Order: sequence, then structure tokens, then C-alpha cells
Amino acid sequence: MNPLLGFILLAFSLFISPDFPADPPKVNQDRLHSSLMKLSTFGKNAAGGSDRVAYSQHDVDARVYVKELMRNAGLEVSVDFAGNIIGKRAGKTPGLKPIAFGSHIDEVPNGGDYDGPVGSLGAIEVIQTLHENGIVTDHPLEVIIFTNEEGGVIGSRALAGQLSQEALKTVSSSGLTQSEGIKALGGDPSRIAEVKRNPGDLAAFLELHIEQGANLYREKLDIGVVEGIVAIEWWEFTYTGFANHAGTTPMNMRKDPMLPAARLVLAINEIVTSHEGAQVGTVGKIQAYPGAGNVIPGEVKLNLELRDLSAEKIWMIYGEIEAKAKKLAEESKTEVSIIHREVASKPALADPAIQKSIENSAKSLGFTFKYLPSGAGHDAQEMARLAPMGMIFIPSKDGISHAPSEFSTKEDIANGANVLLQTILSLDKSLK
Amino acid sequence: MNPLLGFILLAFSLFISPDFPADPPKVNQDRLHSSLMKLSTFGKNAAGGSDRVAYSQHDVDARVYVKELMRNAGLEVSVDFAGNIIGKRAGKTPGLKPIAFGSHIDEVPNGGDYDGPVGSLGAIEVIQTLHENGIVTDHPLEVIIFTNEEGGVIGSRALAGQLSQEALKTVSSSGLTQSEGIKALGGDPSRIAEVKRNPGDLAAFLELHIEQGANLYREKLDIGVVEGIVAIEWWEFTYTGFANHAGTTPMNMRKDPMLPAARLVLAINEIVTSHEGAQVGTVGKIQAYPGAGNVIPGEVKLNLELRDLSAEKIWMIYGEIEAKAKKLAEESKTEVSIIHREVASKPALADPAIQKSIENSAKSLGFTFKYLPSGAGHDAQEMARLAPMGMIFIPSKDGISHAPSEFSTKEDIANGANVLLQTILSLDKSLK
Repeated sequence: MNPLLGFILLAFSLFISPDFPADPPKVNQDRLHSSLMKLSTFGKNAAGGSDRVAYSQHDVDARVYVKELMRNAGLEVSVDFAGNIIGKRAGKTPGLKPIAFGSHIDEVPNGGDYDGPVGSLGAIEVIQTLHENGIVTDHPLEVIIFTNEEGGVIGSRALAGQLSQEALKTVSSSGLTQSEGIKALGGDPSRIAEVKRNPGDLAAFLELHIEQGANLYREKLDIGVVEGIVAIEWWEFTYTGFANHAGTTPMNMRKDPMLPAARLVLAINEIVTSHEGAQVGTVGKIQAYPGAGNVIPGEVKLNLELRDLSAEKIWMIYGEIEAKAKKLAEESKTEVSIIHREVASKPALADPAIQKSIENSAKSLGFTFKYLPSGAGHDAQEMARLAPMGMIFIPSKDGISHAPSEFSTKEDIANGANVLLQTILSLDKSLK
Repeated sequence: MNPLLGFILLAFSLFISPDFPADPPKVNQDRLHSSLMKLSTFGKNAAGGSDRVAYSQHDVDARVYVKELMRNAGLEVSVDFAGNIIGKRAGKTPGLKPIAFGSHIDEVPNGGDYDGPVGSLGAIEVIQTLHENGIVTDHPLEVIIFTNEEGGVIGSRALAGQLSQEALKTVSSSGLTQSEGIKALGGDPSRIAEVKRNPGDLAAFLELHIEQGANLYREKLDIGVVEGIVAIEWWEFTYTGFANHAGTTPMNMRKDPMLPAARLVLAINEIVTSHEGAQVGTVGKIQAYPGAGNVIPGEVKLNLELRDLSAEKIWMIYGEIEAKAKKLAEESKTEVSIIHREVASKPALADPAIQKSIENSAKSLGFTFKYLPSGAGHDAQEMARLAPMGMIFIPSKDGISHAPSEFSTKEDIANGANVLLQTILSLDKSLK
């Protein structure tokens, strides 16, 4: 190539995409996939699922492997009092706060191999790639492998100062309490308060994750730019009628709470879908009491879960459902009582500048993308309390997660890791 | 009174009601009530309910008391191999088969004092009254206090030859198997087949019982002439969709089996009530699986029970429900599977002549009455396999049964016993 032409092309490429060199560093797709497959062997059960629940021996053993990968990538590895694995890499510019990123490696019982591991090993692969390319960022970098995400985002809650001593007493899927489990990972629950970070301690937090929904997969898109993690609210509705003999009570003398409960199930679906947007409403539990085939129920209980990026919208929709629920009780001469259970009362919104940076990174790498909310909870929701947050989603086959059939292609995984890498490099320049 | 006038009145009363003397024998209301109250002390719990479940020590102790009452009334008392207490009284006319009557004294856990005891002690009071009045019937009389009615009409099934060795292995509310329990009552389960009676062995069977429904109570009627005991059929419907994450699965990508299940609950009510008649249809159980607030159910199961005096009508109504259930599955892209469980596939119809005799007895005593089906099962349903059967109902407050608040007035109880007595005397004349 004519040197002048080369210079012109280089200048042009720098002009159209000033943050990205013409030939950006890329992760090693095969190495990343190979480490994921190796990680999946820890806790693989006969049914092909993963039993690597937090605090189990599988989790403990897998963490030894992960720490080794981190050290091989040049990270300075430690375990904090909450059991989180922290890998640090120094930056060039004194005084800058770290850009942190990571995910978790624990799974639900009989879970899959991708929910958590993709973002965890993707983060380590990013560091390995920087290491091999001799790239040192201005900001320090910090990879975090969180403790017990599936059992209540325990590690990230500790970092965000949201983990009470009471919560440490709850029993996890492993059978150990959170406290016992954290000890098994090398943490020290008695000093959990000391892991708390303060807002401003981190320059940004990023998490790469499988979508756990089928939006990207069905639309054949490479990358999801996450707008935020939805707020979640739960309500339990109890319709009370009068339990009676199913054989001897004429139809017109019944106060059967099953009827308004069934009408409410249908009304919830109608109300939730009558509004534009991505809100979801689910009745996941319903039960009649006493629950015998030959007894007209005295009570029927059902659960409502509403999720949306807007807490206001959740409460607006709930208002319509509540009014309908009471109307149905009146019409059926039953009574309804409603208990509200707060799950995640505020959405965790992704930082707009980071969303844009993820979009630009995806574009620069030639990937298709869409903006979408995360309907599921993630460690990133807790980290958003501390720092500007962003999440990158990759497609998951049929939107399945928390099951042995959870699957993402190695290309999609590498694409996500490359977007993570480019976003870090971009933020390293743009963030102060 | 002028003897001639007396004669004319007597002749007139015999003319209008030839079966009944002008001044028929009457039961002793206070004695009957007093023995009921005494019986209720066996197994009375702190909450005022009865824990006299079959085979419990309370049941065993109460039977000692009941046998004493029977002997005092002049009955020849024995316990058969099924644990049924049999009290025999000889008749005047050789070759006639016994008129049998009775009920049970066992209760559901935390049950009441009237369901069973009214018909049991009412039967003994009838014998006591005949004894005191020196009345000997043409037919032999037989009082039967059945074994474990509430736990599956065990004693009457044995008499009807419907009790398998398999059924003897089932565990009763007492914690004992039927077999162990029958032994505790003085029976011998190894010889259970020998208690079987044959059709024709009894001239008739009568049972006095509380209504267990509110028809008589709400209409302020004295006596129910039972048309028969309904047939009962059960079905379990399972709607299968696709279990998925309640946060990440958009509303329009769901296959939520909760929706057709709710629609079916409403359709069942509509279909059952769209037909004339006393049929009842109940959904007493509903449950979503996995049944977590944050998971779209993969399956929803619900139970349907249909009862009616006509098995054909049950199946006609079920046919409409089944067609609707399948249509709802199609419309919601879910699948429905249906399992049928036979409970009591044939109604036990009361003998028309006995129904008429009960009506006449009630009329002659000046009682109001109505014909009605029994929506609940009774020992009489098994006895109907052996002999012409009739049942007499008395009002039960608010139609409540199987609960501590079960209540009938002592007047209503005595009224029922008097109708039983008159019906026996009438049948004694009319039956061959």
C-alpha cells in the first residue's frame, strides 16, 4: 500500500470513529469458550444441568479455577469479607477511580452454564486481551466475581451496603446460611460492613450477561443495550368466601371465592396488556383453601408480580388492578384483602452515557443491537447505587435461563466480550 | 266425650290415615337429647369440636356407651367382623326379613355432635319407645351403628360386599389402618367377607340424618324426604403451557396456562348453572406449578367435582365442560389433559314407596316437608345395594356440618325420630 494512502485511510478512520483504532484488540473467542466449558464441569449433574449453587463445594472449587484464570491474566486477586473475588489491575493516570466489571458464577439448582459465567469469564478474557496487547488503561480496572447472585445478589448488596446482619441468617440453596456460606468462600461475615463502597469509589460498573428473554434471539440481534433493571412489586390477594360442603350447598347459596379469583387472573392480564410498553404482570401462584375436591373453598390466594422500568407505571397499573379486584369482591359477595410485598421498589437505571458508549462500541464492531430493559435482577442493580452502570446483553437461545437448556453460541459470547472491551476502552477515555 | 262421638272420630281418623292410630307412640324428646349430649362428651375438644374420629379411643369408649343404650332398649347387641354394632329385636311374623335402620357415631376431625349421632341415637330411641309402649312389629327390627362412616363408609361397604382387602390397608384419620381400627372396635378384618349381606336379606333400610345443607333450615321446613344420594364424579384438568421467567418474558411471548385455567373455572360455573335442577359443580382445588411469584407457571391443575341424582345428567354437563376446556386450550396455545377419578359413579336412589311412606308419616305428625336429594354420601348409599332404602333429613343450622358449629334443635331431632318411628310402623304393615 502507498504510504500516503495508508495515512489518509488511517486519518479517515480516526475521524469517523475517534475512540476506536482501526484495528481494535479482540478477545480470543476459542479461549473464552474453552474456559466457559471448563467452568461448566464444576457441578455438572447427570441431567446436564449445573448444581453449582452458591457456597456448595462445586462453587468453592470453581472459584479456585476462576482465581487462577484471573492471576494468569495479570490481575492482583483477593477475596473480600463478603466472599466476592476482586481482581485489580493498575491504571496509568494517578487519582482516577477504577472502572469495575464482572458478574457471578453461581447458578440456581439444576441451572445452566451461561447465566453469570458469560459475564464473569468475559470480564477476565477482556483483561487477558489487554494484557496480551500490552494495553494499560488510564483508569485502574477491577474485575468482580460476586458472591451468591442467584440467592439474592448477596455479594453486590454487601458492596452497596445493603446487606443486613438479618439477611446473613437466611438459609441459601446450599443448606448453609449466607453467613456460613460466605465463610466457605473465604469471607468473614463479622466484618461484612467493611466491604461497603461509597458512591464515587468507582468510575463505572459494567456487566455482560445473557438476556434471559428472547428479544435478541427472536429478532436475530447481536447486542442488547440495557436501559435499566426493572422495579418489581408483589401483592398477595386473598378472596374470602365461605367454605362449605360441595355436595350439599346449592349453587345459588354459595359464596365461592374461586370465581372472583379467576376473574381477577383474567383482569390482570387484560389490564397489563392494555397499556403500551414493556411492563409485565404475572400470576405465578394460586391456591384454594382448604383445597379439597369436595369442599367449596373458603379462601383463594393469588400472587401478582408487576415489573417495569418505571415505578410510577407499576403503581398506575396496580391501581387499576386493585379497583377491579375490589369490584369483583363486591359483585361476588366475597371479601378481598391485599398484602403488598416490596421486592425491588426502584428501578436501577443504566447511565445514559454508558448506554450510548455500548451502542457506539457495538456499531464500531459491526454488530446489530437494540435498547431494552432487563426484566431480571442482576448484581448491576446493586452496583448502580455506587457508580454509573451499564449492562450488555447477548442472545440466549429461546430466551431460556435457569435451566440446563440455557445456551448462547460462542460467537455471541465473544461478541459480547468484545463490546465490553471496547466500552471499557471508550469509557477509559471519556470518563474523568 | 260421648262414646259414640269418640267412635266416629276414631273411625274418621282411621279412614283418612289408615296406617296411623289416632295417638301414635312418640319418642321421648328429652331422653333423646340427653343421650345425644352424653355421647358428645366422648372426644369433645377444647375448641368445642368433636375429635371422635373412627377407631380413636373416643370412638371405642363411645361405643361402650351406645351398646349400653341399645341393651337398655331391649336389643340383642353384637359387633360384626367389620366392627358394626348390630342390635336385633325379634318380630311377630315368622319368615319376614328385618327392617334395618341406623347411622354412625364417628366424626370428622374437629367435627360436630349431630352428623351421625342423630340417626344413631334416634334409632335407639325408636326401639326404646316401642319397648316402653309394648309394641312388637311383624318384621324383626335391626339397629346398625356403622363403622367409620366419615372415613369412607367402611362398615356399610363391608355389609354391601364392597370393601376390598386393599381398602383395609388405607390409613384412617386415627392413624390406624382400617384393618387395625376394625380390630380396635372388636371386629376381625380377616373375616370381613363374612359380614356381607345379600340383596333381599333386609326388608328395608332407613337412615335419619341432619341435612348438611341449608334447604330445610332456610325454608323453615321440618322434614326432608330424601330422593336419593347423588352420584359423584371427579376430574383433574391440567393445563400445560411453558414455565418461564416472569420478568424477562414479554406478555406476547407467553404460554401461560393460568389464563385458560381461570377461564375454565368461570365456564364450569356457567355451564353447571345453565341447566335446570339441583346439580352442583365445584372447583375445590387449584394450583400453579412451579408456583413461585416470579415464574410464569408451566402447569395449572384444577379439580372438578360434579354431583347429581342422575349419572346421565352429570356426563351430559361434563361433556359441555370438556368441550369448553379443549377450546380454551386451543385458543391459548396451551394443552389440556384430563384425568377422571370415579368417586360414586351411580346415584343411590331412595325407594319410591318408602319416600311416600316418609311423606305420609311426616304429614300424619303435622310436619312440613320437602323432597330433596342428598348431596352428601351416607351409609344408606351402600345399604341401597341390599334393600329398598329411605332417608329422613332434619334441619341443620345454616346448613353447617363437619364443624363444631353443627347444630340441630332438640325439637327437630325428636321430629325426625318420630317420623322414623312412624315410617317403620307403616312399612311394617305395608312390606311383605
